[in-house]
Amino acid sequence: ARIVTLPGDGVGPEVTDAAVAVLQAVAERSGHTFAFESHAIGGCAIDATGEPLPAATLAACKQADAVLLGAVGGPKWSDPQAKVRPEQGLLALRAALGVFANLRPLHVHPALASLSPLKNEKLKNVDVLFVRELTGGAYFGAKTRTTDTATDECKYTVAEVERVTRRAFELARERRQHVTSVDKANVLETSRLWRSTVTRIAAEYPDVKLEHQLVDSMAMLLLTQPSRYDVIVTENLFGDILTDEAAALAGSLGLLPSASLGEGKVGLYEPIHGSAPDIAGHGVANPLGAILSAALLLRHSLDLDVEATTIEAAVSHVLTNGPHSRDIGGRAGTREICDAVIEALD
Amino acid sequence: ARIVTLPGDGVGPEVTDAAVAVLQAVAERSGHTFAFESHAIGGCAIDATGEPLPAATLAACKQADAVLLGAVGGPKWSDPQAKVRPEQGLLALRAALGVFANLRPLHVHPALASLSPLKNEKLKNVDVLFVRELTGGAYFGAKTRTTDTATDECKYTVAEVERVTRRAFELARERRQHVTSVDKANVLETSRLWRSTVTRIAAEYPDVKLEHQLVDSMAMLLLTQPSRYDVIVTENLFGDILTDEAAALAGSLGLLPSASLGEGKVGLYEPIHGSAPDIAGHGVANPLGAILSAALLLRHSLDLDVEATTIEAAVSHVLTNGPHSRDIGGRAGTREICDAVIEALD
Ligand SMILES: CC(C)[C@H](C(=O)O)[C@@H](O)C(=O)O
Ligand SMILES: CC(C)[C@H](C(=O)O)[C@@H](O)C(=O)O
Repeated sequence: ARIVTLPGDGVGPEVTDAAVAVLQAVAERSGHTFAFESHAIGGCAIDATGEPLPAATLAACKQADAVLLGAVGGPKWSDPQAKVRPEQGLLALRAALGVFANLRPLHVHPALASLSPLKNEKLKNVDVLFVRELTGGAYFGAKTRTTDTATDECKYTVAEVERVTRRAFELARERRQHVTSVDKANVLETSRLWRSTVTRIAAEYPDVKLEHQLVDSMAMLLLTQPSRYDVIVTENLFGDILTDEAAALAGSLGLLPSASLGEGKVGLYEPIHGSAPDIAGHGVANPLGAILSAALLLRHSLDLDVEATTIEAAVSHVLTNGPHSRDIGGRAGTREICDAVIEALD
Repeated sequence: ARIVTLPGDGVGPEVTDAAVAVLQAVAERSGHTFAFESHAIGGCAIDATGEPLPAATLAACKQADAVLLGAVGGPKWSDPQAKVRPEQGLLALRAALGVFANLRPLHVHPALASLSPLKNEKLKNVDVLFVRELTGGAYFGAKTRTTDTATDECKYTVAEVERVTRRAFELARERRQHVTSVDKANVLETSRLWRSTVTRIAAEYPDVKLEHQLVDSMAMLLLTQPSRYDVIVTENLFGDILTDEAAALAGSLGLLPSASLGEGKVGLYEPIHGSAPDIAGHGVANPLGAILSAALLLRHSLDLDVEATTIEAAVSHVLTNGPHSRDIGGRAGTREICDAVIEALD
């Protein structure tokens, strides 16, 4: 299988290296062959080529079986007046690969419950899968700017809502048969289209229960009753906000993986943390978000479910027994955590 | 002083009655005279007149010194295909009164810390004032809908951002001199206008420290470091989501008041909870959000700071000593809580 890596900026290269090392260890043990090819994206691509998503990078991603991304962005490229921004590379890649469904699973590992801001009793049985629409909404709508005024258009078509809804319901079938759709239908026209489309598609899945929540209520319910939710499907910007809120529950952003999937097989996998410029280059970033993203890559793009589960079990073992990185209260560096995961594969 | 009450739907009338009773008790004790006048808004106004904000209601509000609102909406008027919705009345009223700054204070009363989903140590010293822009953004932008597509436009002018920013900085001066501005400047054009405008206005307030956060990070930081924040200023939709998230920290939505202010004196005051149709009519709704909104009314529209503080102290006394309503683990009804607050005024 051909895997393109896009290490990107900040801690991106460090955590991507770790994930690749784990994938290589899995390859050795399982007899599979993974060919890795690294390309530039984000700030480092701007520095090298002037563009956040160079044509060579995009071409390589399109021909790959899967793409593993580190992180993009950093203060060096954050001037609000800048014409070219690292994030544009990521958004353009998501759009070009057509990965409209961003899966963000949330569990709270028992060893980390003490790090969560939430009370322990709230964290019991939390097992949520967010399905965030990733290629529509205000992220990709028309923008205007004059000296006096700025606008962003949020736009959704019925077809865009249908495909991400179907993905959410199919995933819910394999889980606890419950979908919560989040919108702001009491105010937004796109949310009313969202709600009526989700309601209609739900009828195709009579075995799955559908519930609607307004985004403001959902932001509250995630804290007061997090264990009530199974699959939560929502539009791009609401998903961005709610998944970061939910990530706080897990004790650290550094642990959380994501998979972005489209109709085709090529998926985009990335930890949900950012480029963490404050700790970049020090070899102390938590690689578990990237490593768990690599596990999702095996499961969703390469159909290697057993190998994915092996990685997840190894990560769980390391979380239980250590070593732990700084963000979760330990002192171990990126490489040490990575080695411990590899050791735990056996 | 002339106070228009807009009880609205669901529990709105019950909690508004309680707030009026408290204001009347304050009037007796302080020698002030408040004239109350009640008008229809929301679902009950649709039933009576076909419109969620009848002209008579708006005219009365415009001539009042302050407006005290209960809640609007309910399942009866929630058909997504409906042409007229209760929420439109509230949005139209906010726009017509020009109340562009929605203040939502958040404290966690020690007696309620056990009800908060957050760990107790996180709740120490939490004292945040949200300033949510209330008359712009996607709430009021152009909307389109065809069979296939829907759009919402989010629009901000520099002037709209300036005035709410100034309000936030003025409020921060009276507090801990710290403003956090929340946007999504790495993706949205309106957020880039927001950020550059806030940065420019901040220079007029050299005594106040300004910090920018992205909305997704802020959703996380509110949970991991809530005591770090003083004044948080943000646009309409982000404010809607973040204030509900923050409200969960307080142990119950039922406690939280809000004040919506413009350039003029007439302010709009409402608890942040909704119409709670499930408990409406049973006399069990928590009236403290409405009562604390009445305190904000005295402070911000009538310049009666001492009287406002008296109400707040009485509410605090009731929270410490009981009786408590169901939402905070007690059994007392609306009227009983209201009477206890009035008794505690002395
Ligand atoms: C970097 C940024 C553009 C991105 C987003 O908003 O989608 C990030 O926050 C994420 O959630 O993946
Ligand atoms: C009822 C609804 C339109 C309203 C809003 O979204 O502003 C409410 O959620 C609020 O926060 O006051």
